[in-house]
Amino acid sequence: MTDRPDPQQPLGVALVGHSFMGAVHSHAWRTVDHVGSPALRTRRAVLVGRDATRTAEAAELFGWESSSTDWREVLTRDDVHVVDVCTPGDSHAEIAIAALEAGKHVVCEKPLATTVEEAERMAAAAGAAAARGVRSMVAFNYRRVPAVSLARQLVADGRLGEVRQVRAVYLQDWIVDPEFPLTWRLRKDLAGAGALGDIGSHIVDAAQFVTGQTITGVTGVLETFVRRRPLEAQRTGQQTGLGAQASAEYGDVTVDDAAAFIARGSGGALMTFEATRMAPGRKNAMRLEVNGSLGSLAFDFESMNELQFCDATLPDAEGGFRRILATDPSHPYVANWWPPGHGLGYDHPFVHELQDFLAAVSAGSDPSPSFAEGLQVQRVLDAVERSAANSSTYTTV
Amino acid sequence: MTDRPDPQQPLGVALVGHSFMGAVHSHAWRTVDHVGSPALRTRRAVLVGRDATRTAEAAELFGWESSSTDWREVLTRDDVHVVDVCTPGDSHAEIAIAALEAGKHVVCEKPLATTVEEAERMAAAAGAAAARGVRSMVAFNYRRVPAVSLARQLVADGRLGEVRQVRAVYLQDWIVDPEFPLTWRLRKDLAGAGALGDIGSHIVDAAQFVTGQTITGVTGVLETFVRRRPLEAQRTGQQTGLGAQASAEYGDVTVDDAAAFIARGSGGALMTFEATRMAPGRKNAMRLEVNGSLGSLAFDFESMNELQFCDATLPDAEGGFRRILATDPSHPYVANWWPPGHGLGYDHPFVHELQDFLAAVSAGSDPSPSFAEGLQVQRVLDAVERSAANSSTYTTV
Amino acid sequence: MTDRPDPQQPLGVALVGHSFMGAVHSHAWRTVDHVGSPALRTRRAVLVGRDATRTAEAAELFGWESSSTDWREVLTRDDVHVVDVCTPGDSHAEIAIAALEAGKHVVCEKPLATTVEEAERMAAAAGAAAARGVRSMVAFNYRRVPAVSLARQLVADGRLGEVRQVRAVYLQDWIVDPEFPLTWRLRKDLAGAGALGDIGSHIVDAAQFVTGQTITGVTGVLETFVRRRPLEAQRTGQQTGLGAQASAEYGDVTVDDAAAFIARGSGGALMTFEATRMAPGRKNAMRLEVNGSLGSLAFDFESMNELQFCDATLPDAEGGFRRILATDPSHPYVANWWPPGHGLGYDHPFVHELQDFLAAVSAGSDPSPSFAEGLQVQRVLDAVERSAANSSTYTTV
Amino acid sequence: MTDRPDPQQPLGVALVGHSFMGAVHSHAWRTVDHVGSPALRTRRAVLVGRDATRTAEAAELFGWESSSTDWREVLTRDDVHVVDVCTPGDSHAEIAIAALEAGKHVVCEKPLATTVEEAERMAAAAGAAAARGVRSMVAFNYRRVPAVSLARQLVADGRLGEVRQVRAVYLQDWIVDPEFPLTWRLRKDLAGAGALGDIGSHIVDAAQFVTGQTITGVTGVLETFVRRRPLEAQRTGQQTGLGAQASAEYGDVTVDDAAAFIARGSGGALMTFEATRMAPGRKNAMRLEVNGSLGSLAFDFESMNELQFCDATLPDAEGGFRRILATDPSHPYVANWWPPGHGLGYDHPFVHELQDFLAAVSAGSDPSPSFAEGLQVQRVLDAVERSAANSSTYTTV
Repeated sequence: MTDRPDPQQPLGVALVGHSFMGAVHSHAWRTVDHVGSPALRTRRAVLVGRDATRTAEAAELFGWESSSTDWREVLTRDDVHVVDVCTPGDSHAEIAIAALEAGKHVVCEKPLATTVEEAERMAAAAGAAAARGVRSMVAFNYRRVPAVSLARQLVADGRLGEVRQVRAVYLQDWIVDPEFPLTWRLRKDLAGAGALGDIGSHIVDAAQFVTGQTITGVTGVLETFVRRRPLEAQRTGQQTGLGAQASAEYGDVTVDDAAAFIARGSGGALMTFEATRMAPGRKNAMRLEVNGSLGSLAFDFESMNELQFCDATLPDAEGGFRRILATDPSHPYVANWWPPGHGLGYDHPFVHELQDFLAAVSAGSDPSPSFAEGLQVQRVLDAVERSAANSSTYTTV
Repeated sequence: MTDRPDPQQPLGVALVGHSFMGAVHSHAWRTVDHVGSPALRTRRAVLVGRDATRTAEAAELFGWESSSTDWREVLTRDDVHVVDVCTPGDSHAEIAIAALEAGKHVVCEKPLATTVEEAERMAAAAGAAAARGVRSMVAFNYRRVPAVSLARQLVADGRLGEVRQVRAVYLQDWIVDPEFPLTWRLRKDLAGAGALGDIGSHIVDAAQFVTGQTITGVTGVLETFVRRRPLEAQRTGQQTGLGAQASAEYGDVTVDDAAAFIARGSGGALMTFEATRMAPGRKNAMRLEVNGSLGSLAFDFESMNELQFCDATLPDAEGGFRRILATDPSHPYVANWWPPGHGLGYDHPFVHELQDFLAAVSAGSDPSPSFAEGLQVQRVLDAVERSAANSSTYTTV
Repeated sequence: MTDRPDPQQPLGVALVGHSFMGAVHSHAWRTVDHVGSPALRTRRAVLVGRDATRTAEAAELFGWESSSTDWREVLTRDDVHVVDVCTPGDSHAEIAIAALEAGKHVVCEKPLATTVEEAERMAAAAGAAAARGVRSMVAFNYRRVPAVSLARQLVADGRLGEVRQVRAVYLQDWIVDPEFPLTWRLRKDLAGAGALGDIGSHIVDAAQFVTGQTITGVTGVLETFVRRRPLEAQRTGQQTGLGAQASAEYGDVTVDDAAAFIARGSGGALMTFEATRMAPGRKNAMRLEVNGSLGSLAFDFESMNELQFCDATLPDAEGGFRRILATDPSHPYVANWWPPGHGLGYDHPFVHELQDFLAAVSAGSDPSPSFAEGLQVQRVLDAVERSAANSSTYTTV
Repeated sequence: MTDRPDPQQPLGVALVGHSFMGAVHSHAWRTVDHVGSPALRTRRAVLVGRDATRTAEAAELFGWESSSTDWREVLTRDDVHVVDVCTPGDSHAEIAIAALEAGKHVVCEKPLATTVEEAERMAAAAGAAAARGVRSMVAFNYRRVPAVSLARQLVADGRLGEVRQVRAVYLQDWIVDPEFPLTWRLRKDLAGAGALGDIGSHIVDAAQFVTGQTITGVTGVLETFVRRRPLEAQRTGQQTGLGAQASAEYGDVTVDDAAAFIARGSGGALMTFEATRMAPGRKNAMRLEVNGSLGSLAFDFESMNELQFCDATLPDAEGGFRRILATDPSHPYVANWWPPGHGLGYDHPFVHELQDFLAAVSAGSDPSPSFAEGLQVQRVLDAVERSAANSSTYTTV
């Protein structure tokens, strides 16, 4: 593995995991070569999973050259240059660290790990690898939604003045039904945390990304409304969503259904967060509102092509939130796609993150967000859990 | 003062205060006789203020028969049956208690008092007065917004199932400008609290009212972003809004600009609250979202004639938030007004609360919200302040 | 009657009609003295209706000093200075012309008349009266919605550049039910026209008011979807809305349920209009969108406190429709009311039109919109009917 | 060419055109094999364009096996089974007819042709080809937006009752700037019509598709606001949007900037249409509202994942427009994509139309919309032009 790959040779990619994230990443790897001016070409070399038949079927459907059930073996292949980790959280550390040590660039789904300790080892491995020219990135996809990138840009350009308040919520409803089964996302040993880790991690990252402030302390509460659920039945066929079938037996839910916390940013901002999977009618309402001394921003992923911007320096008679359709060629990532108003979908930001990742690999620089950033998010989540376990007392990150 | 007034004789009303709330209440007293079938007729007997000239001018403009600068003297008048307290919070207790002891029915603006101790004395006085047939009500006007009343009704009818989560924010921006002066609302001695007391009290009351759950404990944070401001210049003329002029001298802001807290409801609900006066572009965004096991509700006062309702018992293919224009004759308070779609404004709920108040006085029953309910809100605010002063540790109400 | 009334003496007002418009105008007359600095004081001298008992009851409820069933007699009273005509359209001409000839200032509900011929006589009478200092105004209330006035102001200030396109719709659903009875609004002899006259007249006036362009020609289509309906049962009690009870007999609907037309403005604008009472779920969706060479505006009465403004001179990256909450003191009519974000309702613009009317009477100037403007709207409606009757051929106004 | 291709052999696809539509179709052809269970596999065999260098570059970027500048030669290739026509409208007829005659299945971009005469020949050729098992489809992509398909389904299921009114607008702003150059879309010889043909055709098709009613007559107006524009400079590089560079010379705009027309549906519906490229701030506002006797629907492509549905059979107190996020697995086309709330973008419906096209080819049935349907849309556009040229007189289709 060299720092700057030969641009004439496509990079071989191994993708580990072929469920929801595996499907989305496959779509992105298929697309990234054909949009804009990709920094590097890629090959979808091998798809890795646990079940040979289902993995082979997925490889066929998703367009991978081959399939494997042995990720360790894959790491030994010379024609694999990138490993993309889309497994449940409990295996992130093992696979990602091994891949980095094998000299493979790594993309790893979020949250980075299930514990701070794991995340620390991963960040250390990433740091060591970077010194050898091996790159890594944690895949906080919402950063690459054009409207979210535009939000960051407006803050960075000073258009909001001093950022004072953030309110971030991520509302879903996919487990309101008490008979929805105990999938891996509801088991602490496999997922690390519930709504807090799965979707809370997204809004923590997004809030820090957009404001440029790091969270320094939190006070929080966790709640599990439905404490026992049916166990999950054996999976059959490909599943690209969050669906699952219930069996007749029940087990304990070991993660939170909802998390609420208040945080302090390094620049003094007062931030509120809420992540829940129990909000009927809210399908994927990842929302961010930022208030500064000169203006405000608001975003809702359910209307992902829009950014609301209030420029408070305008005269009062003309003030108000402006619905910017973040589909203009001047907006981040948009120029390679469609004309204004011809919006993007959930999968496009995954292409953007691969574009940025490949550009960094090509340039010999470190892509962002780094594993160190993923670790920092993990520390925030951990502080929320510690605060919740300690009468919500303010807890430093 | 008798329990059930002679309906042939209009009740004489004394209004204390003629600034923002005084203007709105004047409008409501002028209107209440002429809408629907009022339970009792009223006379606008006397307007009370501190400055004789300005009070007399306000009485003329707002349509009061007379004016006075001595509320104690007014309490001795036989033709005054109702006292409406619209002064800054530091005088609520003194005036309201004296009025109740003088046998006058009392309407008192919110928050009920500046401290729990004051509120306790007021609630005790109200209880004693009620035993003598003298009625009292704290004026949480947002309860009587038709959409908010409808929300409560839907919850009470079981349409949301078990209420699990509430997110309530009240966002304003009227003091973002650091040169906005130190009005009474920014002084702890006069107002009791800042955003927490002024607007936080509204969302606490609304959340409890809509869900039927009482808040039992909180964890909170307070913040003052702008810590010194110009003192307020002498007022001139009538002011019906929140405007003020600055003088050349500066003083310390002694209340919070923003408050954030997480609360627990008596029925197990996880509630989040935020009140701020520092959100550019948010003018009066009093928002409430409620999630239950069977559905959700969402309200935003900036679109006060709408209630969003998601009935999660509908098939998934048809699910979603329904924008109910709460302007149908079948909706609370609406039948006396205009046809569907011909919406109401900020002042109409003040008419509704007087309608309900007069109906209770006429019926010899206690209007709601009572001073005891106002006291309970005060206790929640106090618990937030105590939590904030104690590393946000969870604090029982 | 003198041109400039003695401001010390309140003007005596006679209101003819006490149904929906009578109730709204009563509310406005009760309120106008008490908001801002009214140019003239008024007395609610007499309410006029056809049924003695119901009129007397309405006078009592709405706060009028007396009631009468004889509008001609009322015109002879010296203490009546203003006549406000809120009757069905077929009596507008007779009452308004007689009132003007009797030297009374006249406010007349819209549409001005049921035919162009009537409207011409009314405009002629108004012109003659104006020469004697007697004022008249047709009550297109939507002009005085702050957001609509603000729209006109932005166009007049050149913020939209050359106005090129207007799309105006007025959507209601109150007669979707085929059993809704044949009230006067569904009878051509009493109402002149159906949706076209009742609500189409509002959007014609609003489009011309906001753009400053006069409609010069039209091509149109009319439709009646439900052609027979139950006759209306005898009314009982006050009705402030659009409700009615059905009898067992049926009759022919003689007006349009829906009207659609395309128009040309004097400044070259291409305008589209649609008025319908058959759009389920649209309660009072009076909407206006204006596109110019430099920007766009959009308004929907169902969110009456908002104006959407797109300033296309901003950089593309920041462009978009801005939701201006038209509740700022700097916005038309707002300064006398409540703080920003504390919105107004359907009835407030009726107060605004009386404020302007009284200011004009006081100043000895002609209020707007004049009967001549009402006549021009009538001519547009007539041209639509003629076009519809002539294969939609383009028809000049 | 056989009717039912061997599913083991991928169909070879030739795409003619590599500008905006060529880019979108390329994306769809790359994706369609990898989503759901494709009925047939495909190969991107050859990309055809006029300029050899630019076409070769596009083929490389978009992932086509080869490129060509000779579409006639391509039609002789045995390994090409499908021809996808994405050229400007003036060459649709020639290419599509030749391809059909050569036994190739054809996908053709909309509007089908530049004149009714061309469209008639194309429909005739398609009919003849169908008899030989050769399939054709016109690519009205908006039909396959899940929310639009859902709208059709709700109408077909009777949820709206009798469809009475449609209001359809398609608003864009990409040529508001008078210096935007005279691209082919602004030249009648190349495009056939302006806004009317380009985007008016979409809303005509969508209105007919959703309501199931065919337009039988129209009355219309066309307008060109900017009558001269700079000629287009020579293109360089790939352009996937609607951008263009101006030269120093000017020419006449020969198409409409805006079209407005009123139409009658075969089931009695009154329909209004407007297409414009001159609405500042509206980027791709393809909007459709349908009112029936039992309910209403509303759609806006700028929020393409939402369908507003009002079920007027619900009690008045609960009525209102429901925002259905058309992202549920139960919604058309969604099950193969992402979980609820993880919305789709502009390009996904192009995949859906290829899925349906390939399913029809595989099944030996005719895909929809057929060329005959494309011809019918062309006839509507032609009737609008004839009406506009004849004083807007009502003109049968």
